[in-house]
Amino acid sequence: MKLSRKNLNERLNHLYDVIIVGGGAGGLSAAIYLQRYNLSCLVVEKGRGRSFWMQELRNYLGLPADTPGRELLQRGQEHALSLGADYLRGYVEAVTEETTEAGKSFAVRVKIGKTDSIYPVFRSKYVIAASGLIDYLPRLDNMQNVYDYAGYNLHVCMICDGYDMNDKLCGLFVGSEASINTAFVLNWFTPYITVFTNGQVEVGSEMRQKLQDHGFPLVETPIQQFLGENHQMTGVELVDGSTVKLETGLVAMGSRYHSEYLKGLDLEWKGGNLVTDSMCRTSHPRIFAVGDLKEGLNQVSVAVADGTLAATAIWRDIRRSSPPRRWEQNLSIGAVS
Amino acid sequence: MKLSRKNLNERLNHLYDVIIVGGGAGGLSAAIYLQRYNLSCLVVEKGRGRSFWMQELRNYLGLPADTPGRELLQRGQEHALSLGADYLRGYVEAVTEETTEAGKSFAVRVKIGKTDSIYPVFRSKYVIAASGLIDYLPRLDNMQNVYDYAGYNLHVCMICDGYDMNDKLCGLFVGSEASINTAFVLNWFTPYITVFTNGQVEVGSEMRQKLQDHGFPLVETPIQQFLGENHQMTGVELVDGSTVKLETGLVAMGSRYHSEYLKGLDLEWKGGNLVTDSMCRTSHPRIFAVGDLKEGLNQVSVAVADGTLAATAIWRDIRRSSPPRRWEQNLSIGAVS
Repeated sequence: MKLSRKNLNERLNHLYDVIIVGGGAGGLSAAIYLQRYNLSCLVVEKGRGRSFWMQELRNYLGLPADTPGRELLQRGQEHALSLGADYLRGYVEAVTEETTEAGKSFAVRVKIGKTDSIYPVFRSKYVIAASGLIDYLPRLDNMQNVYDYAGYNLHVCMICDGYDMNDKLCGLFVGSEASINTAFVLNWFTPYITVFTNGQVEVGSEMRQKLQDHGFPLVETPIQQFLGENHQMTGVELVDGSTVKLETGLVAMGSRYHSEYLKGLDLEWKGGNLVTDSMCRTSHPRIFAVGDLKEGLNQVSVAVADGTLAATAIWRDIRRSSPPRRWEQNLSIGAVS
Repeated sequence: MKLSRKNLNERLNHLYDVIIVGGGAGGLSAAIYLQRYNLSCLVVEKGRGRSFWMQELRNYLGLPADTPGRELLQRGQEHALSLGADYLRGYVEAVTEETTEAGKSFAVRVKIGKTDSIYPVFRSKYVIAASGLIDYLPRLDNMQNVYDYAGYNLHVCMICDGYDMNDKLCGLFVGSEASINTAFVLNWFTPYITVFTNGQVEVGSEMRQKLQDHGFPLVETPIQQFLGENHQMTGVELVDGSTVKLETGLVAMGSRYHSEYLKGLDLEWKGGNLVTDSMCRTSHPRIFAVGDLKEGLNQVSVAVADGTLAATAIWRDIRRSSPPRRWEQNLSIGAVS
């Protein structure tokens, strides 16, 4: 059921099989599988993750290409709730290990509400970290101007949206010198690339030469604003008043992983990603990671499969440590007649 | 486009980037990704694979639980076609390696039509084996009687459908002594299990004892027919005229992999499964395997992710071996104005 301030007290003494941090594609897929394995789970979703911002899924089998990410999330939430999952809007602040008489468990502290916040603690045997990431966007004075285009024709994922940039005039918005190398992959889709540093990146002579060799202009003047209307970006105005015409854009400024709540635990990381085995188990036997937070391709389809794998591994653990169920044949249920 | 006897000649001199053997969830996901990477592909689908028989998907994020497998396939086929993929109904008989002046390629021989068959040969740089498996079903005199219930409440996948067997009177239909062990996993969902050998399995004393300890009856008399109506199986009639009441059933008789066409190639196998790396690449650098044919969980979500991974790995290969695209700035397309 949906939990809120009003009813969450009912669950404070419940030991969930699994608490899932993040209600994106990976977390919701895990919830559906867990409930179908007769395991109990709570999904805690802070809202507005990466898939929420996707205006069109484009490459997920079974859904029309123009399905918005938020529709996938809405459907998944309803599916999980219909199977008996619990779902809570809140921000997970900390996960800590506890050992009680009942065995080992996790205490998951959640912040609910931006004002008059409350901080309930829920408990589970397993944790699935499905909290993903959020992309850095160009920092402009008026951020609404960025949000007007991000996820429409100002993209953040080349694998998802490179096809829609084919042979278009494309702005590449970078946050470091290394990320300029994205241009030399993006040119698979379009060679008409202009690189924008927004005045915040020092570019060495070697990289300047490489850009010049490819014919990709480098614009180092800070950006005043994106131009366009109806969520279709048509160019960039620079602070010196000049404009650059564009038909599409790719933001390659890196991303921030939502993983602060795991920092007190001894887990193996590779950069911002959790290292996992083939079933998405981290170096802690009862903590799993799915989707963008773990190593690998950041794609909806991969996150959905990760949720399947993590839920199945947890089911195997719990099932194997549970006593077998016998058919007590003195019950009145008939067998061979 | 859809290929058939009438128009396939147009493609006989085409070197596809990828030929995908199998138009199930994994193959179609790969086709969608490949086309969005601007690569060309042909999907060859023989029809009536495992997902075609699923009456309800139940656990795939984003689609209602009662969506039939064939609807997922239909949507995926339309999606891939809309992106420019080729699609052909036919049976792949053999894949062989060729070395021509243009480099290394595969020749894929397809049988089209059950009568007046023709055997065109298509060519590609890469092959994705996505041909999956088909489950063995109980062999009865009247197979239509089996098909009436298989995929409805006579299930073939415990991970998919165990939830729908919860605490029901369940028949477990086995094809070997080892597969009787399925009962000791299935009892997570229901303890009311009757095991049927259809008179075709020798059961040793140790296994008989284990079944007795769990209270699971063993029925060794051959099956005459399934009972029921409207695709809802309600029991089994044995050849001696006795009946066993059931509410659901699980067929655990193993499955046959569709992989004969690969037998001439030197690939690493583990049982019936192809061994692959984390991107679904087999031991042959230009052959990939996705979905049920590779090791791992046989789930739609996993196959869809596999298609994503294989397509992405192939794109990386082809992109890295292609010359960079430069922006010839003497073109009339404007940059900084």
